[in-house]
Amino acid sequence: MPQFAERISGAKRSFIREILKVTADPQVISFAGGLPNPASFPVAEIAEAAAKVIGESGASALQYSTTEGYKPLRQWIAARYKARKGMDVNPDDILITTGSQQALDLVAKIIVNAGDPVVIERPGYLGAIQALSIFRPDWRSVELMDDGPDLDALDAALAGAKLFYAVTSFQNPSGLSYSAAKRAAVAELLRKHDAFFLEDDPYGELRFSGQDLPPVYAQRPENSMLLGTFSKIAAPGFRLGWVVAQGEIMERLVIAKQAADLHTGSLDQMLVHRFLQDNDFEAHVLRIRKLYGDQCRAMQEAIALHFPKDVHVTAPEGGMFLWATLPQGMDSMDLLKRAVECKVAFVPGEAFHVDGTGGNTLRLNYSNADKDTIHEGIRRLADCMRACLKG
Amino acid sequence: MPQFAERISGAKRSFIREILKVTADPQVISFAGGLPNPASFPVAEIAEAAAKVIGESGASALQYSTTEGYKPLRQWIAARYKARKGMDVNPDDILITTGSQQALDLVAKIIVNAGDPVVIERPGYLGAIQALSIFRPDWRSVELMDDGPDLDALDAALAGAKLFYAVTSFQNPSGLSYSAAKRAAVAELLRKHDAFFLEDDPYGELRFSGQDLPPVYAQRPENSMLLGTFSKIAAPGFRLGWVVAQGEIMERLVIAKQAADLHTGSLDQMLVHRFLQDNDFEAHVLRIRKLYGDQCRAMQEAIALHFPKDVHVTAPEGGMFLWATLPQGMDSMDLLKRAVECKVAFVPGEAFHVDGTGGNTLRLNYSNADKDTIHEGIRRLADCMRACLKG
Repeated sequence: MPQFAERISGAKRSFIREILKVTADPQVISFAGGLPNPASFPVAEIAEAAAKVIGESGASALQYSTTEGYKPLRQWIAARYKARKGMDVNPDDILITTGSQQALDLVAKIIVNAGDPVVIERPGYLGAIQALSIFRPDWRSVELMDDGPDLDALDAALAGAKLFYAVTSFQNPSGLSYSAAKRAAVAELLRKHDAFFLEDDPYGELRFSGQDLPPVYAQRPENSMLLGTFSKIAAPGFRLGWVVAQGEIMERLVIAKQAADLHTGSLDQMLVHRFLQDNDFEAHVLRIRKLYGDQCRAMQEAIALHFPKDVHVTAPEGGMFLWATLPQGMDSMDLLKRAVECKVAFVPGEAFHVDGTGGNTLRLNYSNADKDTIHEGIRRLADCMRACLKG
Repeated sequence: MPQFAERISGAKRSFIREILKVTADPQVISFAGGLPNPASFPVAEIAEAAAKVIGESGASALQYSTTEGYKPLRQWIAARYKARKGMDVNPDDILITTGSQQALDLVAKIIVNAGDPVVIERPGYLGAIQALSIFRPDWRSVELMDDGPDLDALDAALAGAKLFYAVTSFQNPSGLSYSAAKRAAVAELLRKHDAFFLEDDPYGELRFSGQDLPPVYAQRPENSMLLGTFSKIAAPGFRLGWVVAQGEIMERLVIAKQAADLHTGSLDQMLVHRFLQDNDFEAHVLRIRKLYGDQCRAMQEAIALHFPKDVHVTAPEGGMFLWATLPQGMDSMDLLKRAVECKVAFVPGEAFHVDGTGGNTLRLNYSNADKDTIHEGIRRLADCMRACLKG
């Protein structure tokens, strides 16, 4: 058999997707996935938007369209940045992508040569690790603290680095966010080291407590790219995301996008735009924030009641995840084996680390289960932890 | 500014898309695009399918889904191969992609190291040249004759080659198809040289004369990949294509797909499947074949009436394109400049050549204009040719 490309030889299927197969058993309470709650999907509104778009503009909704994306949708995104973050974004600096996962692939493609140093948070987002790893970077990682990255470590890691990838609000997997001070400091370090910056912001709209902060991109747009997605505020099945970038970066992203899939689905773009136009989006997002905020609190309350006291858990102000650190010596893969027997699941944290650490960490998703289920699942998981502690 | 990746430094925007901007003038009769005729889009049927899918399965149509694709759609594709080509394809060997353009990117990603010899037809499909060029192959090309590739040249080119890419039926840009004898010979040569084979078949359903032939893939599935798309038989705006491959190849394609965009749009897949289930697909495809066959004949008749006799034009049995070879010394870029002044457009052929040849060739699309428009456009183009011949 002929040889495959070197870039694919070390690539693995998503560990999470493999775990999700284990949790297909309906008896299992799963905190493993990262799915938005289908109760948050505006199904009736989407049905109405689909009927209108196909009825009124069927030929263009079904035809090839521009690589850059549907202009009215790009204008909506720009207006939203202005309204919510006070940012001036030119709609021409927005490229619609097939989910923000595709933006990760495109950015990696235009920036990463094999062996280029690329910096990521520890823990870091698994989808980005997968997309970027195909282009074989030399990974460096920087510890994520409760208010953002360890700045001294980031300063050291950025020396000679090509790219820094970060999820600055309600990060996946940790739920943590960068403080205003850390955002400013990160922008300063990026300027000092002249590295590309890829800021991923899939959860930014999902804040249920605390104060909104503009992305780091707003302070250092040059050599930076900012990602967004409709997956968490409309529905993920559309595969609709975007990347904000300027000048030469955007020029190259468009070339890479054209080669990757010509353009993102025309009907999906027009349909979501119609949904946004015809409905009260602010009220829709508020409902999602309340839903996830309530479920997050339910999980935090259950954890306070049941978990052993030496398990540390993050306290997010938004997003979909909590992150737990087990006492040293307790392994989350061992815990998962027990947990699956007790009909509860989570994602062990090691997959979110590019340096092989994180064996005593785990991710808990709270967006996709009701309060009673969350309580029961956390109780089961706490029992497994105690069993593990006893050895 | 930090440096971009080497793979993107030489990449260019699609030449065709740049030409299409020139042809935005509604006075221009454009044979430049490669768009399916919107008259062939089943708009009412799609509207009905959308209403049913969102109404009956809204939550799953809007949710994340599997990387491999919607199982019933993969089963439909497998059944169609059986019914139309007599091929036994396991639905598990089909991966749904975001248009077949994405399949080109995924295949290139898992196979092509920088510098690997990759063979393509001369002329060859521009979208494949773009997608593969990002991974920096060492291009080799083999002349496409009226019945398929020059076999001696292919034998020589395949020596030490990693991959052969071919559009075996109604090729873009030439309209040419491989004969039964050439299909068998190509399968034999691929076995001899043990190269990967990427067979692209976007137009296979669009035969309006002659006899259907199974793809080369049917004779040599090992180390081969077969691409298909719904763009020409349903609508391109969905971005729905697929790749057929087995074993380790499929395993790696799924990994690359997961990193590229997680999965193809859930609603698009379910909606197109519903359209296929609820309607007479055979009758639908027959209508497209008749439409394009009539338009192809109209263009051929106009060419016979108007073109200078020393312009050679291919005689396709299906697809969307004719390919013209001008007398030596006449340059199709010069012709295009005149043509745009005369309000008619086409794509100069050089972009379809990886070796810089083809300066006296051009592609004519007949799928997207009615007969009268085709006649008028060909008359204008013929006038420009005569003007060019006079110098």
